Amino acid sequence: MTAYARNQWYIVAYGREVGSSLLGRTVCEEPIVLYRTGDGRAVALADRCVHRRFPLSESRIDDNRIVCGYHGFTYGPDGACVSVPGQQRIPRTARVSSYPVVEQDSFIWVYIGDPATADPAAIPRAPQLTDPGWTTVSGMEPLAARYQLLVDNLLDLSHETYLHGGYIGTPEVAETPITTEVDDDRGVIYVSRRMADAACPPFYAKSTGIDGRITRWQDIEYQPPCLYRLHSRVAPVGEDVSGFHMEIVYGITPSTAGSTYDFWAVARDFAQDDPAVSDFLYENNRTVVLQDVAALNILERVLAAEPDGYQELSVNIDTGGLAARRLLARMSS
Amino acid sequence: MTAYARNQWYIVAYGREVGSSLLGRTVCEEPIVLYRTGDGRAVALADRCVHRRFPLSESRIDDNRIVCGYHGFTYGPDGACVSVPGQQRIPRTARVSSYPVVEQDSFIWVYIGDPATADPAAIPRAPQLTDPGWTTVSGMEPLAARYQLLVDNLLDLSHETYLHGGYIGTPEVAETPITTEVDDDRGVIYVSRRMADAACPPFYAKSTGIDGRITRWQDIEYQPPCLYRLHSRVAPVGEDVSGFHMEIVYGITPSTAGSTYDFWAVARDFAQDDPAVSDFLYENNRTVVLQDVAALNILERVLAAEPDGYQELSVNIDTGGLAARRLLARMSS
Amino acid sequence: MTAYARNQWYIVAYGREVGSSLLGRTVCEEPIVLYRTGDGRAVALADRCVHRRFPLSESRIDDNRIVCGYHGFTYGPDGACVSVPGQQRIPRTARVSSYPVVEQDSFIWVYIGDPATADPAAIPRAPQLTDPGWTTVSGMEPLAARYQLLVDNLLDLSHETYLHGGYIGTPEVAETPITTEVDDDRGVIYVSRRMADAACPPFYAKSTGIDGRITRWQDIEYQPPCLYRLHSRVAPVGEDVSGFHMEIVYGITPSTAGSTYDFWAVARDFAQDDPAVSDFLYENNRTVVLQDVAALNILERVLAAEPDGYQELSVNIDTGGLAARRLLARMSS
Repeated sequence: MTAYARNQWYIVAYGREVGSSLLGRTVCEEPIVLYRTGDGRAVALADRCVHRRFPLSESRIDDNRIVCGYHGFTYGPDGACVSVPGQQRIPRTARVSSYPVVEQDSFIWVYIGDPATADPAAIPRAPQLTDPGWTTVSGMEPLAARYQLLVDNLLDLSHETYLHGGYIGTPEVAETPITTEVDDDRGVIYVSRRMADAACPPFYAKSTGIDGRITRWQDIEYQPPCLYRLHSRVAPVGEDVSGFHMEIVYGITPSTAGSTYDFWAVARDFAQDDPAVSDFLYENNRTVVLQDVAALNILERVLAAEPDGYQELSVNIDTGGLAARRLLARMSS
Repeated sequence: MTAYARNQWYIVAYGREVGSSLLGRTVCEEPIVLYRTGDGRAVALADRCVHRRFPLSESRIDDNRIVCGYHGFTYGPDGACVSVPGQQRIPRTARVSSYPVVEQDSFIWVYIGDPATADPAAIPRAPQLTDPGWTTVSGMEPLAARYQLLVDNLLDLSHETYLHGGYIGTPEVAETPITTEVDDDRGVIYVSRRMADAACPPFYAKSTGIDGRITRWQDIEYQPPCLYRLHSRVAPVGEDVSGFHMEIVYGITPSTAGSTYDFWAVARDFAQDDPAVSDFLYENNRTVVLQDVAALNILERVLAAEPDGYQELSVNIDTGGLAARRLLARMSS
Repeated sequence: MTAYARNQWYIVAYGREVGSSLLGRTVCEEPIVLYRTGDGRAVALADRCVHRRFPLSESRIDDNRIVCGYHGFTYGPDGACVSVPGQQRIPRTARVSSYPVVEQDSFIWVYIGDPATADPAAIPRAPQLTDPGWTTVSGMEPLAARYQLLVDNLLDLSHETYLHGGYIGTPEVAETPITTEVDDDRGVIYVSRRMADAACPPFYAKSTGIDGRITRWQDIEYQPPCLYRLHSRVAPVGEDVSGFHMEIVYGITPSTAGSTYDFWAVARDFAQDDPAVSDFLYENNRTVVLQDVAALNILERVLAAEPDGYQELSVNIDTGGLAARRLLARMSS
């Protein structure tokens, strides 16, 4: 049985994915149905009819209510059943759970756990994604692997050199040591790498127009369980400029024991109005994400076939990932 | 481990499906091979060679005998092995089980359980399916769901309104209360619904030619575990006529824990010689069955992923289904 | 849990399959990566990076070393890690297992078990496969069945009559009794069948040009667990000649509990330079192997669905197969 960090906010969808039709997602093994009421508010309910457990996401919306596609049990946006076929009386217990929902920074967040403890102020922020001074491309790729593999992957970027060569990886990434800091009280992990004089990979060369070697900053800020941000900066070597900034954001949302939603977004503070740069970054980052997905899907099949307690060997590059495991274990207990 | 009602007759095939080639089916997890001998008699044997358990249904028939496709062990219609490769002596125990078989009302029935208790007179009847005064269309769809979901489905027709709108469902089906009777001694469940003034759905309008509202009778008679009959009648509202009759028959045959044979037939006592009506009813009822199959396959995947003891909430429409569960539990213990 | 014969040599590949790119195979549930160093030597290492268990077979070779495709951990041909990303120090335990390898008779053999007990002289031989006086065709088909089913299959050739009619089977194979000898000390099983006057199946008729009935010798020599040889000879009935010889070799290599590598080769001492005969024998024997694969894949699905301790009934033709089971059980304990 997989342990999940409960009493936590998770990204369940982009706001743009939720509208007047029903969307089914599963977060931490809880099936959730999402839609938007006529006044634009996003709603998240348990995705199982109380009657015979038919998925409400296979149903239809009528006047802001979900009408179960099997026998017509009808639910309001608060989860209360308001109509039962063949009778006037509605059983007192006919109600599906409703999830706390916050729409922020382009995401729909839901709270998994005891709703009484849900505090919207605790949701970590990624303000660049909707900042008018920045331009963002984003997507979501389903991952057929446990979410911990994505956490490991993102906390150690030395893999860029080997898995993402020709996109974002160059030899300097794996060669350059990292510094790691953990803020145990706030539950944040910081991993930083500064490459003073590095080759400029196509991802940055083609989007910024830099022609030559770069100074490259990778500053990771991970707020377990869900929000990962890479504050990325590149500048031509020796030029005393603040450089080009990208805010690379991942939402790491566990779905089931062996599947994860891999939300990804790239915001930039340059060439904001250039659609060719947007297209390039969208395609390029999606390719990089799919390279990770392919590798992690392979790794999941390997690990799923292993006996429990298989061996690993950790080295310096794993410092951030091990800290993340420790925080996640604490949150999941 | 799924419990099945044993010492019971089950529909394993239509008579037309069984001929001079071998047909493999699995009933209540028992693999069965079917064929017809030269004199037209249907034979049902255990579908596993005694030697190395190769499926006899992957073999061939030679002179009314099955010759195993792997090493040639040969079986007569009674299941006795009559030839073994490489030797004259046939081991005394070389025999596969033979199932009691009755061909009746277009179906091949087999008896699952102790053959000594098999009583052909106990097989429930659906005489309209072969009555010259009636015309029948029929088929079988495999269902990737436990058979109990099909029992639930057929015992509560209020789902016609939501799942089969535009075919057999109208609002009145779900709105009209039912009456349920259980004959515990004979093991029969009756569920009835009379709609005095209802819209006429396309299934009945196009087949009968009725143009306008109807009185509609649905009288279910279910004889667990296998035979379900819906005595259906429609007549124009206010016309004092006996109306148009359809006998809608289902054979609910458990195959494995998560699969079921869904036999269906529609017999009518009108437009008997009109092939266009036959074609229409065949296509329309098959579509309705496939709508059920799609919904129940979804529900099976949901339930299979749930922990045992998931919650349901039953209401009035479930009275027949709950009675069926009770009878089936008694028969399976 | 399947038991495998350990401390044994197994065929893992043909020599021609192993080169300068990486090949992943699994033998007795041990994942192995194979490649050839610049000097032509075949190398077999455990196919899991010590760091996070990424399959090394999904990596690339650089200067005779494997560079893990995920984070760049680098391994020499002896399995020792020689480079770790982001640091100079290489942990003392950073090493993957190396398997003893012998290339012989066209095969790559690996030793599964304690390498200290690996004795190359214990590898059984099939010298015809690389003898200049013989011509060989060969291939490998993956089997989705436990290896024991292939052992059973090959030790009892009476199935040729039923499964391979029109290729290598005629009625005489199943009709003719066998003689079986077991050399317990050397661990070899011999099964022989001599058909004095038999139909000549197409496999032999078309390759040898014999037109008429034949005397046919089948002399099996099985050295568990892996090497099976059928010394096959055919000659026209009554002609006092030594006949046409074929050496039909199988490598039976367990992969996982339900999968097996089925290596097959046919060597002949006639028409050595006729490519049409080579093409014919390749296609024909591959067809025969695929007929076995299809039957055994069906049988595996049957047995996997059965409770443990299912019943079999053994007869004379099974004498060799039962002896093989006994030797394999002894080797696996």
